Amino acid sequence: MLWLIGTGLCDAQDLTLRALAAIRGADRVYLEGYTSLLRCPIQDLEKDLGRPLTVLARKDVESDIGPLLEEARTGSVALLVIGDPFGATTHADLYVRARHAGVEVRVVHNASVLTAIGTTGLELYRFGRTVSLPYWEAGFEPTSFLARIAENRKRGLHTLCLLDIKADQGRFMTVREGLEILESAEIRERTGIVTPDLSIVGVARLGWPDQLIIAGTLSGLKATDFGRPPHAIVIPGRLHPIEEEMLSFWTP
Amino acid sequence: MLWLIGTGLCDAQDLTLRALAAIRGADRVYLEGYTSLLRCPIQDLEKDLGRPLTVLARKDVESDIGPLLEEARTGSVALLVIGDPFGATTHADLYVRARHAGVEVRVVHNASVLTAIGTTGLELYRFGRTVSLPYWEAGFEPTSFLARIAENRKRGLHTLCLLDIKADQGRFMTVREGLEILESAEIRERTGIVTPDLSIVGVARLGWPDQLIIAGTLSGLKATDFGRPPHAIVIPGRLHPIEEEMLSFWTP
Repeated sequence: MLWLIGTGLCDAQDLTLRALAAIRGADRVYLEGYTSLLRCPIQDLEKDLGRPLTVLARKDVESDIGPLLEEARTGSVALLVIGDPFGATTHADLYVRARHAGVEVRVVHNASVLTAIGTTGLELYRFGRTVSLPYWEAGFEPTSFLARIAENRKRGLHTLCLLDIKADQGRFMTVREGLEILESAEIRERTGIVTPDLSIVGVARLGWPDQLIIAGTLSGLKATDFGRPPHAIVIPGRLHPIEEEMLSFWTP
Repeated sequence: MLWLIGTGLCDAQDLTLRALAAIRGADRVYLEGYTSLLRCPIQDLEKDLGRPLTVLARKDVESDIGPLLEEARTGSVALLVIGDPFGATTHADLYVRARHAGVEVRVVHNASVLTAIGTTGLELYRFGRTVSLPYWEAGFEPTSFLARIAENRKRGLHTLCLLDIKADQGRFMTVREGLEILESAEIRERTGIVTPDLSIVGVARLGWPDQLIIAGTLSGLKATDFGRPPHAIVIPGRLHPIEEEMLSFWTP
């Protein structure tokens, strides 16, 4: 049995009773540590759970998952995933492999940035397709997210921009870095969307006690220090009156 | 203090430790009972929580929220919302009113159908705008969801169709009823999308132990009994190989 267990967004307090029961019943507990970031150090999570955690890197899940699936074929294995298990694209792949290996999979859902972003007051039903902003590297400078943002805007929809995380390098993209990548992409694609006046909602530490939401212009938010990661960006589309009022709470 | 607390999808086992602490510390605990449906009767939830629950109807939240906000101004009030607190549009409105009444609001996030739908294997990043299919009534026969589905399909994106709930009348739209409304709308709008061969994923009791997912054609799924509510429908867009493989698990 393989349990895919969402941890929610902050720390062990976000675990559900269902998740705790599955973790306690598991022969071994893994933590997928490369798609997001919890507030607490792993040692604290181990202490709260009373279980040692084996942290998996991306390659452990994407290429070297065989040993874990072998354990799950004969015993009960829990894989903790920050947020909701299907918030990251790699986990459907894992689900498919497990099924092919004859392993039963159970899922324990939890909060994800994809819905918790509703706390900004922007309606979840008025979001278009979510995009990811990756760190640019030599030979990898994608701009396709800009076309998707443009499509959402054309329909009046908000766009959630997820910011790149390279946990193994300790790199977590900040609001400022994300806005700079939007600007760099704009220079190439000339969509006319990314201007200093573009309305932006910057979010840091969503679902944590010190969560920070600031609404402003792109140039204003580039100059704002959002503190500790993780961060995220929303580019609002057309606003309803209630949405406007909610954003006013986050406007300095 | 007003706590907006997501319950997750099934029963008290889906509550997080953070939610339980807030509920235990609250002077009074309300349950918003009109936007979704838990598996357990309210009496069971009360027993599991060790607290009496006051169930709110839509009008209590949308028009008559004054007394609750007054309680929250001087004490601690918990409002349980099935799924995630911002999964329903009325709660941003409540947040705004609370802030205007000088009430501090805290949010405890949880799983929502909007992300748990990822358990179908359809990637959350390949969903377009979510639509709602309402029950048609005399003088209220909207078809606008069809244009949104068409826009999503044009971009190759999946569409999650949320199905109407009239909890006060004990009416919970089934997959079959939802598909019939799509067909009725198609007769008027003639988009060419809604045909007997249209690929559909029907979902029942998402996140419950007896969750059911079936992929098939519109005509096939219209003839399928999905059992107890709540139900939901996904209209898949273009499929990646992994998505195709995931859907094959749900194809009878």
